[in-house]
Amino acid sequence: MLTFAQFGAGRIGRIHAGNIAAHPSARLKYVVDVNADAAATLAAQRGAEVADVEAALVDPEVTAVMVASSTDTHADLIESSARAGKAIFCEKPIDLDSVRVETCLAVVASTGVPLMLGFNRRFDPTFAALRKRLRAGEVGEVEQVVITSRDPGPPPIDYIKVSGGLFRDMMIHDLDIARWLLGEEPARIFATGACLVDPAIGAAGDIDTATVVLTTKRGTQAVITNSRRAAYGYDQRVEVLGSRGMLQVGNRTETAILAATADAVSTDKPMHFFLERYAEAYRIELDAFIGAVAEGRAPDPGGEDGRMALRLADAALESLKSGAPVDL
Amino acid sequence: MLTFAQFGAGRIGRIHAGNIAAHPSARLKYVVDVNADAAATLAAQRGAEVADVEAALVDPEVTAVMVASSTDTHADLIESSARAGKAIFCEKPIDLDSVRVETCLAVVASTGVPLMLGFNRRFDPTFAALRKRLRAGEVGEVEQVVITSRDPGPPPIDYIKVSGGLFRDMMIHDLDIARWLLGEEPARIFATGACLVDPAIGAAGDIDTATVVLTTKRGTQAVITNSRRAAYGYDQRVEVLGSRGMLQVGNRTETAILAATADAVSTDKPMHFFLERYAEAYRIELDAFIGAVAEGRAPDPGGEDGRMALRLADAALESLKSGAPVDL
Amino acid sequence: MLTFAQFGAGRIGRIHAGNIAAHPSARLKYVVDVNADAAATLAAQRGAEVADVEAALVDPEVTAVMVASSTDTHADLIESSARAGKAIFCEKPIDLDSVRVETCLAVVASTGVPLMLGFNRRFDPTFAALRKRLRAGEVGEVEQVVITSRDPGPPPIDYIKVSGGLFRDMMIHDLDIARWLLGEEPARIFATGACLVDPAIGAAGDIDTATVVLTTKRGTQAVITNSRRAAYGYDQRVEVLGSRGMLQVGNRTETAILAATADAVSTDKPMHFFLERYAEAYRIELDAFIGAVAEGRAPDPGGEDGRMALRLADAALESLKSGAPVDL
Amino acid sequence: MLTFAQFGAGRIGRIHAGNIAAHPSARLKYVVDVNADAAATLAAQRGAEVADVEAALVDPEVTAVMVASSTDTHADLIESSARAGKAIFCEKPIDLDSVRVETCLAVVASTGVPLMLGFNRRFDPTFAALRKRLRAGEVGEVEQVVITSRDPGPPPIDYIKVSGGLFRDMMIHDLDIARWLLGEEPARIFATGACLVDPAIGAAGDIDTATVVLTTKRGTQAVITNSRRAAYGYDQRVEVLGSRGMLQVGNRTETAILAATADAVSTDKPMHFFLERYAEAYRIELDAFIGAVAEGRAPDPGGEDGRMALRLADAALESLKSGAPVDL
Repeated sequence: MLTFAQFGAGRIGRIHAGNIAAHPSARLKYVVDVNADAAATLAAQRGAEVADVEAALVDPEVTAVMVASSTDTHADLIESSARAGKAIFCEKPIDLDSVRVETCLAVVASTGVPLMLGFNRRFDPTFAALRKRLRAGEVGEVEQVVITSRDPGPPPIDYIKVSGGLFRDMMIHDLDIARWLLGEEPARIFATGACLVDPAIGAAGDIDTATVVLTTKRGTQAVITNSRRAAYGYDQRVEVLGSRGMLQVGNRTETAILAATADAVSTDKPMHFFLERYAEAYRIELDAFIGAVAEGRAPDPGGEDGRMALRLADAALESLKSGAPVDL
Repeated sequence: MLTFAQFGAGRIGRIHAGNIAAHPSARLKYVVDVNADAAATLAAQRGAEVADVEAALVDPEVTAVMVASSTDTHADLIESSARAGKAIFCEKPIDLDSVRVETCLAVVASTGVPLMLGFNRRFDPTFAALRKRLRAGEVGEVEQVVITSRDPGPPPIDYIKVSGGLFRDMMIHDLDIARWLLGEEPARIFATGACLVDPAIGAAGDIDTATVVLTTKRGTQAVITNSRRAAYGYDQRVEVLGSRGMLQVGNRTETAILAATADAVSTDKPMHFFLERYAEAYRIELDAFIGAVAEGRAPDPGGEDGRMALRLADAALESLKSGAPVDL
Repeated sequence: MLTFAQFGAGRIGRIHAGNIAAHPSARLKYVVDVNADAAATLAAQRGAEVADVEAALVDPEVTAVMVASSTDTHADLIESSARAGKAIFCEKPIDLDSVRVETCLAVVASTGVPLMLGFNRRFDPTFAALRKRLRAGEVGEVEQVVITSRDPGPPPIDYIKVSGGLFRDMMIHDLDIARWLLGEEPARIFATGACLVDPAIGAAGDIDTATVVLTTKRGTQAVITNSRRAAYGYDQRVEVLGSRGMLQVGNRTETAILAATADAVSTDKPMHFFLERYAEAYRIELDAFIGAVAEGRAPDPGGEDGRMALRLADAALESLKSGAPVDL
Repeated sequence: MLTFAQFGAGRIGRIHAGNIAAHPSARLKYVVDVNADAAATLAAQRGAEVADVEAALVDPEVTAVMVASSTDTHADLIESSARAGKAIFCEKPIDLDSVRVETCLAVVASTGVPLMLGFNRRFDPTFAALRKRLRAGEVGEVEQVVITSRDPGPPPIDYIKVSGGLFRDMMIHDLDIARWLLGEEPARIFATGACLVDPAIGAAGDIDTATVVLTTKRGTQAVITNSRRAAYGYDQRVEVLGSRGMLQVGNRTETAILAATADAVSTDKPMHFFLERYAEAYRIELDAFIGAVAEGRAPDPGGEDGRMALRLADAALESLKSGAPVDL
């Protein structure tokens, strides 16, 4: 049984708190948030208490923390929690700055606490089945990976400004999936991008439409296309060409209804955004964390996966700026 | 907050007990089963106590019962629970004998307790969306309904023998769905069937493959095809032709993976059997029951729906035996 | 090389004439039609001459006839052509009256000329592949056949009045397909139907929406649903459940485009009506006829298939009228 | 009526000869091939005569030529035919060398004869419908184009050696489609590739697996993935993301059969290779050429499209070699 203190009572925090509260081997003891109302509401809803960081971390009953606060607090919270000896589950990213990530991971390493990064898509049943079938050799050697990842619409400009940019905020998930599927670290990255969706995003110094190509030493190729806006909804697809065939992951829908009328033959649009699409993944990743801690295994994905994904995002940005590919 | 006593700790009982335990407005107090071990195991797992029927029903804390025991106990348990003033959720059917159903429903009516029948499919998000869209007029007037319902494999012969036969045990769900979608009571039924899957089923006096046609006064037609065995799994589809188009419900799959190899382009088989396929429906129907009781509304589907579905199943059997259609 | 005289220069006649003219082993010599303009236009377009029936049949160069005129002329033309020793391809039906069919087939038999019936769907590549795979045992023994056949809209009332009714005019194709797939003659038929699409069809003594169930001695079941109107277009599907799996035939579309917008995820509607949907089938059936005649094989489907399909249609009508199933 | 001399009696030549012979406004007079047997066989089959280049071009009856011979003869044949005043349909490419292409096109320009390039995919009904819907604004402004193009297996090594390499031999079709869909000329190209399928291809100095990214000045992105081997067959897909939605082109299949068995739910593999997949496109492109010549319109795509596609292929090769993107 893990007893959690949770940092962050926002949108993703509420998801994690609900999953902790519902897990048979977990208990949510504290909710911590600078927004006192949000903390109180969530704590009340899930039978937890409100606390501040210090109080939560000194409580010896607390054996694990869920870091789901704003990105700029992650590294500090990870370090404090590590020093307090807590097992740590942290939403991606560890930090937007790779140097800060290094120092943070060094602290974690020195304390020896388990750290898991919230790359939720790895736990989606469809993505997990894809990788399992790939590793089982169903389509032979991986040759090309094509990842399509598009949001239904862009976040508020205020968020864009502190997000670290499309590569570190959005594509980081796809870069992690690419690494995870390729089975070999990318050796080179080339990025191109533009602001086609909303000029305000460009004015904020960011792009909203990007295409990235990764290659490995062996010559395997991965392509990621990102857009901050897909009129038809949250588009999350992956295709892997192997020497003996192809595996594709399509979008999931709320219902299995097909409608045929004088106008069209149509099906549901993809499930709306990440909270809906990956609801199951959030439950399963928490369960994986709890299981790893209980059994003394290193959680997977861990800090190194967070560091590598950020490194790829940084290199993508460098490539975008220079116009040339970047060797990794 | 409803406090439940649950009758039955078998396969379907375990599903309901889990859902009750996880529901924020429900509490599972007692588990009752003639199999003491099963009762104890389930009670321990869900934080409930073991009791016998009487003890459970005299406890004034118990405000609701979940009847998930064997079919032959349903009517008695409904009557006892009704007389004890409990809200009742009962797995279909009320009884295999329509006269017994009438007397049982009379008792329920005289006590005024709410009774809900577990026609789970109505609560499946896809089926529920289908009906909502039909009622919203998306495809105009209903003209033809085609229901395909096939099990991955037949139950044990011992179960077949006490099941009441294919029409009362299996097709009863489809007959309920047909009534629910047609929006007009069937006026006539014609049934044909055979034993094609396993001669032992025929030896037990039952059939395993059946086709039934229902017609309404207006002339709307519904067809149901049933088989106790589909090599590819649990097949649950519905198609409704209306004056302005068609709505189809397809099967659901575990993952959204498509595999293309030298042999085939293939997708997942349908989700395995009812516990998996309708897991969400079981949660939602319980929530609907709890909501109806809390708000003093009559639960839907209720006893009358149970009675009508059985009447259709009985008429199908009569038609099968006589070879002629039966007027309802 | 077969030299054809073609009877009928209407819609279906133009299709056949084009296919004859394009076939490397066929030549279209005459076009015959009571509508002189239609005959002249089609003859000019395909490099043929206009003639009357007699002239066409006395020409010894003519070795084959294509009967694509109005239904009420088929039997007479078959008999005249048979007596003239021509190989005969005839559009379904031979006649709407089963007694007339018998006498006509007796003439054909006495002359020994080859006769092929235009049950075009058997030659559609998808339907042909379905049957081939069934016969190869891919899904084991046939247990249930479900045929969906709906027109985009009803024909003119004047046509309805002389059509012989839905069963003989429209469902006859599906009855032929059912026989062809079942691999065992139907032993019993039950029909239900109504006028739901257009009251004028009812006023003309016909129905526009029908459901028919066929059963074989072994217990295999076939269901056919027909409608004279599907808002979404020409719906031609078949499903066969066997002991080891299921084969389904879906609709075909003009393009393989999927469109995803804020409104819907949609694909093409089914190909419009029989001339488009079965264009390939018309070419292939002609080729099959020419090949059979060239090699001295009996064309398949032949006169007996025309007779059996009509018998089933007649029995369906009898069942509709009596309300009871009809033994065959 | 155009009278054709055809150069080339190989695989693709046979397709074109058949289409010319079957076209109501075309006549095939000569077949020319260095392989005398091939020429004779094809000429006999299509009712044409065998000739040599000179004889074919001096015949004033010949008004058009079909250049379907080996790539190294295209430019010379185009020039000779242009000087002889014939309308020219030429299989891609004009030549593998861009300087040779320029001089060849200059000759064509000086003579004023119509020249059409055989970028057959533009005429495939699905691809043509895609572009029409894009231009009609169905999904708004184009933002991302994703082209997947994979062959069922690599050609013989001897062909690879004279093919000009993957970019000029295979991807040239996709580069043309990218230009055609983007609606704006690419400004930059980045290519990556490897030899993953067959080491012999690498030994011949070529690659077999490639990914290319094109960007336009506006920032629109196009990705092309190519492989010389897809175990599941000829994979020809296109996806276009626009500001208001997405259009996707999927693969086409021989039949519309879905099979569900204990092993899998499967559909047909994609239609085998280009001769089958684009059979209709070959007929339609010929018809477009004949129509353009008849009406005095410039054929589309023309020489300039051939030149531009080759320029993109050359730039891709340059990028592959240098490792850097190439500005166009």
